[in-house]
Amino acid sequence: MNEHASLPLGAFRLTGGFWRDRAESVARDVIPYQWKALNNEVPGVPQSHAVENFRIAAGEAGGSPKGTIFQDSDVAKWIEAAAYSLATKPDPGLEARIDELVRLVEKSQLPDGYVNTYFIAAAGIGKRWSDLVMGHELYCAGHMMEAAVAYFGATGKRRLLDVMRRYADYIGTVFGPAEGQNPGFDGHPEIELALHRLAAATGEKKYAELANHFVDARGKVANFYKGEAAMEGMIPKSRWFRSDYYLADKPVREMDAVEGHSVRAMYLYSAMADQYRMTGDPTLRAALDRLWKNAVKAHLYVTAGIGSQSHGERFTIDYDLPNDSCYTETCASIGLALWAWRMLLIEPRREYADVMERAMYNGILSGISLDGTGYFYVNPLEVGPATAYRQDLSHVATSRVGWFDCACCPTNVARFAASAGARLVTVAAESLWVHHYATGSVGLEFAGKPVTLSMKTGYPWDGAVEIEVEKGDSVGFALRLRVPSWCASWSLSVNGSPVPGTLGADGYAAVSRAWNAGDRARLDLDMSPRFLRANPLVREDAGKVAVMRGPVVYCAEERDNGKNLHLLSVDPRLGAAAVTEGSLPAGTVALEAEAFRDAEGEADGPLYREYDAAVSAERRKLTLIPYYQWGNRAPGEEMLVWLRVRD
Amino acid sequence: MNEHASLPLGAFRLTGGFWRDRAESVARDVIPYQWKALNNEVPGVPQSHAVENFRIAAGEAGGSPKGTIFQDSDVAKWIEAAAYSLATKPDPGLEARIDELVRLVEKSQLPDGYVNTYFIAAAGIGKRWSDLVMGHELYCAGHMMEAAVAYFGATGKRRLLDVMRRYADYIGTVFGPAEGQNPGFDGHPEIELALHRLAAATGEKKYAELANHFVDARGKVANFYKGEAAMEGMIPKSRWFRSDYYLADKPVREMDAVEGHSVRAMYLYSAMADQYRMTGDPTLRAALDRLWKNAVKAHLYVTAGIGSQSHGERFTIDYDLPNDSCYTETCASIGLALWAWRMLLIEPRREYADVMERAMYNGILSGISLDGTGYFYVNPLEVGPATAYRQDLSHVATSRVGWFDCACCPTNVARFAASAGARLVTVAAESLWVHHYATGSVGLEFAGKPVTLSMKTGYPWDGAVEIEVEKGDSVGFALRLRVPSWCASWSLSVNGSPVPGTLGADGYAAVSRAWNAGDRARLDLDMSPRFLRANPLVREDAGKVAVMRGPVVYCAEERDNGKNLHLLSVDPRLGAAAVTEGSLPAGTVALEAEAFRDAEGEADGPLYREYDAAVSAERRKLTLIPYYQWGNRAPGEEMLVWLRVRD
Repeated sequence: MNEHASLPLGAFRLTGGFWRDRAESVARDVIPYQWKALNNEVPGVPQSHAVENFRIAAGEAGGSPKGTIFQDSDVAKWIEAAAYSLATKPDPGLEARIDELVRLVEKSQLPDGYVNTYFIAAAGIGKRWSDLVMGHELYCAGHMMEAAVAYFGATGKRRLLDVMRRYADYIGTVFGPAEGQNPGFDGHPEIELALHRLAAATGEKKYAELANHFVDARGKVANFYKGEAAMEGMIPKSRWFRSDYYLADKPVREMDAVEGHSVRAMYLYSAMADQYRMTGDPTLRAALDRLWKNAVKAHLYVTAGIGSQSHGERFTIDYDLPNDSCYTETCASIGLALWAWRMLLIEPRREYADVMERAMYNGILSGISLDGTGYFYVNPLEVGPATAYRQDLSHVATSRVGWFDCACCPTNVARFAASAGARLVTVAAESLWVHHYATGSVGLEFAGKPVTLSMKTGYPWDGAVEIEVEKGDSVGFALRLRVPSWCASWSLSVNGSPVPGTLGADGYAAVSRAWNAGDRARLDLDMSPRFLRANPLVREDAGKVAVMRGPVVYCAEERDNGKNLHLLSVDPRLGAAAVTEGSLPAGTVALEAEAFRDAEGEADGPLYREYDAAVSAERRKLTLIPYYQWGNRAPGEEMLVWLRVRD
Repeated sequence: MNEHASLPLGAFRLTGGFWRDRAESVARDVIPYQWKALNNEVPGVPQSHAVENFRIAAGEAGGSPKGTIFQDSDVAKWIEAAAYSLATKPDPGLEARIDELVRLVEKSQLPDGYVNTYFIAAAGIGKRWSDLVMGHELYCAGHMMEAAVAYFGATGKRRLLDVMRRYADYIGTVFGPAEGQNPGFDGHPEIELALHRLAAATGEKKYAELANHFVDARGKVANFYKGEAAMEGMIPKSRWFRSDYYLADKPVREMDAVEGHSVRAMYLYSAMADQYRMTGDPTLRAALDRLWKNAVKAHLYVTAGIGSQSHGERFTIDYDLPNDSCYTETCASIGLALWAWRMLLIEPRREYADVMERAMYNGILSGISLDGTGYFYVNPLEVGPATAYRQDLSHVATSRVGWFDCACCPTNVARFAASAGARLVTVAAESLWVHHYATGSVGLEFAGKPVTLSMKTGYPWDGAVEIEVEKGDSVGFALRLRVPSWCASWSLSVNGSPVPGTLGADGYAAVSRAWNAGDRARLDLDMSPRFLRANPLVREDAGKVAVMRGPVVYCAEERDNGKNLHLLSVDPRLGAAAVTEGSLPAGTVALEAEAFRDAEGEADGPLYREYDAAVSAERRKLTLIPYYQWGNRAPGEEMLVWLRVRD
């Protein structure tokens, strides 16, 4: 197993283009802004207290920790994001800040290794491990372990890694299947992913084995360490906050369909994938395949948002995909991408990369503003006149906000964007697999021979990708380039000569040859705008289309198209054209489509009237912008992804 | 003012047809069943305790009252329904039951006149009038006053009337604008309607003046008697349970648009109409006209359901009419009909009768099963695969239930149906105005001359209405027959000779002449099925049609059309035909339409695919049944009113 290797962060060096811009925005805008937010220095937004909590736990400040019980994880994810940024863009001031944080974390650590500001220092809180269901101790531990691994990877500094190893060692004594050990697991999966990374960073397999234990114990432990019994009745009359919400109602190998809290689900499935890569257990793989199939078949918004309802922030039943009341949390799409990436590492099939790409360019980036300081927690596909008014839509923000009481998403999107370069290509079986296209360069070795490749592309706005051998002579390997399933027409050439279609069953176009310095491969992907319809079983999308171009989903926004966007309809036969829209960031491709707008002259007319033919409508142009850019130009705008078809 | 007079209950004697059937069902099925429910004798449903509460308050049983704080009103509405039934169908056993109840109510009355089982006998409850916002004391008083008036009207027995007069007299000392009086009013309007009826029954104008005081005080009293201040913060973070929910945010004469809890709103607007009939105050009429216009223009479901959201059971913004998550409480449609009836009494215009009729044949009767023992509190227009699963739809029952914890609707629909015969015709200005068509007879007097008329019709299934002068000679009066606005084609004849179209601006066809015994007028209304579309501003109905025939709204149900009803679409040009469906009650007209059903072969297909043309669909017949009959044949069925158009 584990032949497919991801490259270390920074091995693929982003030198330009879309993801380089994002990484620079994270370094320039996001990390400094979030540092202020975590230090209560942003006026007018919910106060985080997260850094102060560590000062309190370290004994350097008075009071009691404030914020959510998992506030520590925001600090951890910020460190992780900052570490990724440091790995490619040194910043001594930032490093000093992190070192100071690390000092506080270490100082807050109890002699037995325990780290958690809330359970150490908050007034009136129960004993450690007394609330595995909602206490998030192992979850917070996991995020700080990921931060430690990232910071070690970026700087070689071991201090935080050592702190978190001590904590992991202690956790390994508390939890486990042995007599006298706590047989429980966290209500929110996360530590499993972290322990696998810790194992890789330290070479200590025991951490991965502890992760596997947590996965294996899930759903098997009777009453889930007291907590589960209480959990069943946690919220009176609730239909949701039961063990399925926590992915604890059955052993993972018996899971057939995605369920529960969508972020918890994504992290658990990611941990299962990590475990499969380690163990090769076919029963895990079978479960993963079932879960993946169900997720992709019936639970994925076109934006790669997941989680159809607010209550429980969770999955509902197959094909239930409301566009206005969905939850589609930014963190859930991040979790989906993390899962898809792990599935790619198991087996490079474009269906994994396609879903990951859908998340990368849509449902994840929609969660952060273009300037890095405004966020959506919920990413709806439709914001209408009633959104700001209806109680059942009260979870949907119609304007970006600066911070949240529960601020899991901002730091999560920061760490994701800052590490995107590490999830573009993999190496296996004398092949370079290019899953995602970006501008950068990478040094590799095949059969002992070094080679340096560069990739240049305007993706996702442009479908041309050029890969050049910069250094290296007669290195034999296969270049395997994903042809996205959305792409109906593509071509591949090497040194200007067309390479006949060699699309594998895996969805990758392969060119296997001896490569020499100066050799160039070029992939051209057709980027024509596409009109998509949903499976007829999706009630909410019946009679509607979504518009994509390349991997980017488009939406109509009020600023360009006026109020009452539901009055708009399109005829897919009339197509759409790529245009430049001056109010969007340079380089962005907007679309213009022929459309219709139902007459509004009936505003004072009767509520119901005889159907004659269609409602009278006027032809007009419709401007569509990338979905992930919505809510950046004017606050409180209407927005619509699925457009009615008028044909 | 007040020229338009409704007739006393029983003056129009139902002798057959739709509403006679309903009245008989109330007498035979509903009243006995609800008596059992109120006495905790129906197994497997929420226990009411309502009758027992009066035994407790009367000192004849121990314990503390149970159920909602307004449980007394269920007993009151049951008495009212039973009284209406007795008025047309004597039943000594039933009368004895009511007399026993009246004895308990009287015995529970405190020396100062106060009646309320909760505030008298419940443990741990505050002092009387300490919670005008949610305590519902005046609300319960109002319902019992209505019961008293109805029982007095049906039997001439004064005992309950006297009890409630004493209570009203006491209330009149407590509440009022004078120094030292309580300037408050009830959080839930109702007593206002009752006081007007009490004034009419007793000839004591002071009761109506107290009603008017309650209306006038609303929204003017600073902080609404302590309660309002508390109310503003009642439910943390709630956007709804503020004074607008209680229709207490502004004086009634400043109200421009319907708002708040929809039942409260309907009862208030009804009280305003009663007050206008009494006072002729043009500022009240102007407010009523604004509210009516707004309600009809932008808040009325095609079924006459009102109240777009569950939270607050309330109105939202104009044109926000979701079909699956609506509240559309049975009581709200009843309130709408009561308001519309009062508007008709102010001025006979068919728009009032049309709305009332829409409620009568759709949104009200949908709340009660055909056998009288199963109820819907919420009347959705769409029940889909996810309805039983989604938390935000958890207020929507997919199967009829036998009783509710909060059981306001069952007894309300019983009293409404039992008194329907009293809201069909009015007499004014030497005219008989026939607002609603039903089979029965009525004795009248014009210019001192008696006349007996009979009406025969198969309405709402058949559009022919025959009115015959049974007794009376050369009585001069105008017969004014409503031509519903839904009716595109109609004809009127007298004694077989066509009467040329004489439709007034009021929407009534008038024949003014001397009538003699044996004269017959005949109205024929075109009952062709109609496809309706909603105003384009109704987002949820875009691209869809509803089907009506006469005043009856139709729906598709799973039993006839299979699961996943959203797969169905219709082409209005292909029309629909009246058919008999054996599983429905005899006489019911069902509809059959040419329709399409999207292929389900894609169940395992991709979630999103290129739009080619329309989804492949097969032609099939679609069976539509009257909306009010839904949920009577199989539990948990899908149901759909608004059908997609495929044209």
